[in-house]
Amino acid sequence: MPELNKDTRLCISLAARPSNIGTRFHNFLYAELGLDFIYKAFTTTDITAAIGGVRALGIRGCSVSMPFKEAVIPLVDEMEPSASAIGSVNTIVNDDGHLTASNTDYEAVATLLDTHGIDRNLPVLVRGSGGMAKAVVAAFAGSGFTDLTVLARNATSGPALAAAYGATWTADEPAPRGGVIVNVTPLGMNGADADALAFSPAHVDAADVVFDVVAFPSHTPLIRAGEAAGKHVITGAEVIALQAARQFERYTGVRPTDEQVARASAHSRAM
Amino acid sequence: MPELNKDTRLCISLAARPSNIGTRFHNFLYAELGLDFIYKAFTTTDITAAIGGVRALGIRGCSVSMPFKEAVIPLVDEMEPSASAIGSVNTIVNDDGHLTASNTDYEAVATLLDTHGIDRNLPVLVRGSGGMAKAVVAAFAGSGFTDLTVLARNATSGPALAAAYGATWTADEPAPRGGVIVNVTPLGMNGADADALAFSPAHVDAADVVFDVVAFPSHTPLIRAGEAAGKHVITGAEVIALQAARQFERYTGVRPTDEQVARASAHSRAM
Repeated sequence: MPELNKDTRLCISLAARPSNIGTRFHNFLYAELGLDFIYKAFTTTDITAAIGGVRALGIRGCSVSMPFKEAVIPLVDEMEPSASAIGSVNTIVNDDGHLTASNTDYEAVATLLDTHGIDRNLPVLVRGSGGMAKAVVAAFAGSGFTDLTVLARNATSGPALAAAYGATWTADEPAPRGGVIVNVTPLGMNGADADALAFSPAHVDAADVVFDVVAFPSHTPLIRAGEAAGKHVITGAEVIALQAARQFERYTGVRPTDEQVARASAHSRAM
Repeated sequence: MPELNKDTRLCISLAARPSNIGTRFHNFLYAELGLDFIYKAFTTTDITAAIGGVRALGIRGCSVSMPFKEAVIPLVDEMEPSASAIGSVNTIVNDDGHLTASNTDYEAVATLLDTHGIDRNLPVLVRGSGGMAKAVVAAFAGSGFTDLTVLARNATSGPALAAAYGATWTADEPAPRGGVIVNVTPLGMNGADADALAFSPAHVDAADVVFDVVAFPSHTPLIRAGEAAGKHVITGAEVIALQAARQFERYTGVRPTDEQVARASAHSRAM
């Protein structure tokens, strides 16, 4: 890492509970690419003043996590379609005080559907109805998938998300129909739900593609079950690395190679 | 430098024209002492939002330079005597959103008058009437010097500064009386006035102590003339290093040794 100087650009993240992932990912690539940037996670209890500070201090980029993804919308100057389409921001770029918001989660999911060559005609069952589920359903819809079902217990956000993208809502797990099953809940995530399988074994058996947005661990019970059954799997580690790479490119103007992103991702996950 | 992480503390400076000095000084000592801190200079066109950002982002410390030393007063929660006495802030410490302001320039000058053992009975002639001159005159007065003269062309700030500390104001260089002569103008500073001698040779010859607050270069024409004449000299490099060391201690809770401060200062000045 080069010595800091007055012209070093600062990028930050804002989250209620910051992790080290972004900090390690971005700083690894700055060093790898010889860029005069630093990145550090922050939290705040005053999102309005924090974003005002981003603008006033010339902080170049700001990654936005829960619970601020909607709260920052009135605080920026411009919304890109990736953010305005779903009403959720995870990336803010500061060009001389002009703040532009985007959503690289949406972009990352859409890109993965392309690079994995997922058949648009497959039925899609998404479990979850939170902010990230919105990005996932929107990315499927935006990528041309039309047979969409939202599985969510929440009787407010579930039907609302489904209605926004012409999807069907169900509160209970429907009968397996194959196609793509996607988990966007904390089931299988490190913590209390680490052992939970986000879909029943019958769904895994019937599926063509098993997609889990949970990134820690990347090999959730659902992904392990999908791999054991020989399914095409897409992991949350792929989503988080790709969305971070898109943020990186927006902040620095430099696109890292896939190999560099993979190494930065591995570094960021090695605690 | 250890790898940045989410818990690394950030300290910054705010100035219209940031230099690399503080950034190099503080980061050198963080590395030397193994502290999980980083420091970086910033500028802003919106001091209110910038200080709001310091508070909201939990930025631990903020060094304040021209032209913000007075503008930040209504933005902090508490003024220490070193700042309130002269109405000028150069240091803000953030304790969980509570901002405390102080002036380590004042403290540094007062400390140097002690450590150099300057006789309180000597007459003192200070050239300048800006924010730093206020800190210098206040430090002399606060240290027990009573025979004070302010030399300043400015017919508003000059008499005002003199009146505040029971000093005599003069717009033109008075007859030499010996004692302490202090330059607090840009005369002798790198740039247009680099060759200017802040006091006439007759003043240097008559002086007991030659004190120049200009730090770049530390060997101004005035300091060189003082040394050539065998006078006791105090340089701006001593002031800037000592005030930065006081800031460092406030931000980190760790007092660096004199030897560490000297090395950090030398590092910060080696461009």
